[in-house]
Amino acid sequence: MRVAAELDRLRVVLVRTRNPLNMGAAARAMSNFGFSRLRLVNPYKEGHHEARSAVGAAAVLAAAEEYTSLAEAVADCTLVVGTTAVGGRELQHPLRRLEEGARLVRRRLRSSPVALLFGSEKTGLSNADLSHCHWLLRIPTVPDNISMNLGQAVAVCLYELARQARPARAAEQSPRAAAGEVERVTAMVLDVLRASGYVKPHGAAVAEEKVRRLVRRLDLRGDDAEVWLGMWRQIAWKLRAEEEA
Amino acid sequence: MRVAAELDRLRVVLVRTRNPLNMGAAARAMSNFGFSRLRLVNPYKEGHHEARSAVGAAAVLAAAEEYTSLAEAVADCTLVVGTTAVGGRELQHPLRRLEEGARLVRRRLRSSPVALLFGSEKTGLSNADLSHCHWLLRIPTVPDNISMNLGQAVAVCLYELARQARPARAAEQSPRAAAGEVERVTAMVLDVLRASGYVKPHGAAVAEEKVRRLVRRLDLRGDDAEVWLGMWRQIAWKLRAEEEA
Repeated sequence: MRVAAELDRLRVVLVRTRNPLNMGAAARAMSNFGFSRLRLVNPYKEGHHEARSAVGAAAVLAAAEEYTSLAEAVADCTLVVGTTAVGGRELQHPLRRLEEGARLVRRRLRSSPVALLFGSEKTGLSNADLSHCHWLLRIPTVPDNISMNLGQAVAVCLYELARQARPARAAEQSPRAAAGEVERVTAMVLDVLRASGYVKPHGAAVAEEKVRRLVRRLDLRGDDAEVWLGMWRQIAWKLRAEEEA
Repeated sequence: MRVAAELDRLRVVLVRTRNPLNMGAAARAMSNFGFSRLRLVNPYKEGHHEARSAVGAAAVLAAAEEYTSLAEAVADCTLVVGTTAVGGRELQHPLRRLEEGARLVRRRLRSSPVALLFGSEKTGLSNADLSHCHWLLRIPTVPDNISMNLGQAVAVCLYELARQARPARAAEQSPRAAAGEVERVTAMVLDVLRASGYVKPHGAAVAEEKVRRLVRRLDLRGDDAEVWLGMWRQIAWKLRAEEEA
């Protein structure tokens, strides 16, 4: 019973999935391994009705939630994990093998929601997507062929998460800040960095992604996030007040 | 090197597969996890050419061997293992969960070829097929939905076989910032908090301790500490510059 509640805290988030068959396959694997919360961010084809025929996937797909931004789709999660086939660009994030990563995800699921992100079949997760992630998960494929089919990647990740299901122990002492709160801190930090001249208007998008990753790496506790938010707000206010003076 | 030779002893045997896409998916998963020997017993559609487009599957499919009987397809194997979603009929065979079963398969692969059988999408393995098996393997799905997609079942089984092949390594980790550096960040944060009016001159000692603990809880990486230090320095400079202006 406790394990079921834990699995229910996982949000499987498919970002810009192109092929409805893959949505169906993801939903089917979720159903096979006891997960139920599917979120779709800007699916390539409107609606996911074509995928409904996949065996066992119907209930999961019927309850799937659609979002137009990744930030909204992960807002209630205290841990956001991206899946990747690994390339040079991802090295800005800590990278964990599935087995170790699944252990950390399981631990967090005891107390709060976790998002597991899968990118589009063609391009995977973008740098903007990755900037929402705390760290990345890699399925240990062989170097010769690291590119997995989306439905198979979902199945393997969920198998590993279900395999590790053990009787729950005590929850963590301090719950981590939810992604929505972390994003508010990020916005405030960026505001201050702009006002102070640390971030230039040019190349602001790159800076924004860098700062987003930097803030995620702090892995803020919920109560600390609130304190930091108050500090940054005051600093921003002071900078603007003096500018106008 | 030894691991590659071992994996090469596994024969993935698809029995009466109906959908060429599933053959392609099986081949792709094999390629992902370092397996190469695919055998097809009476595939429903002649030839497996339609499946050739699956990414990374081309080499595996091109080398696939076709058989008209299961007996021939497993003739060179010293261990024959059937996969099943479990039904009453299979109880004549020992049934092992994937994790335990994979351990036994791995052990046998050190010395001789092993066949891993997957039945057709519709009916699975027949009783006649099962009679060729030493024992059966079950992927631990939830009771509500035990029926897995063929390509996903292959992927999960091969992941587990490959997972057990590698010695677990320590996670890649960035070294944490030294206490001296953390203290420099703390001092800079305090400087900014004072300049912004967040920390009042009265009760500064208490505030200092609070901020010190707060910054320690960030558990900063060494390289991140440097970035934050640069940011805080710039903010402090800007606040003072505007104060003086």
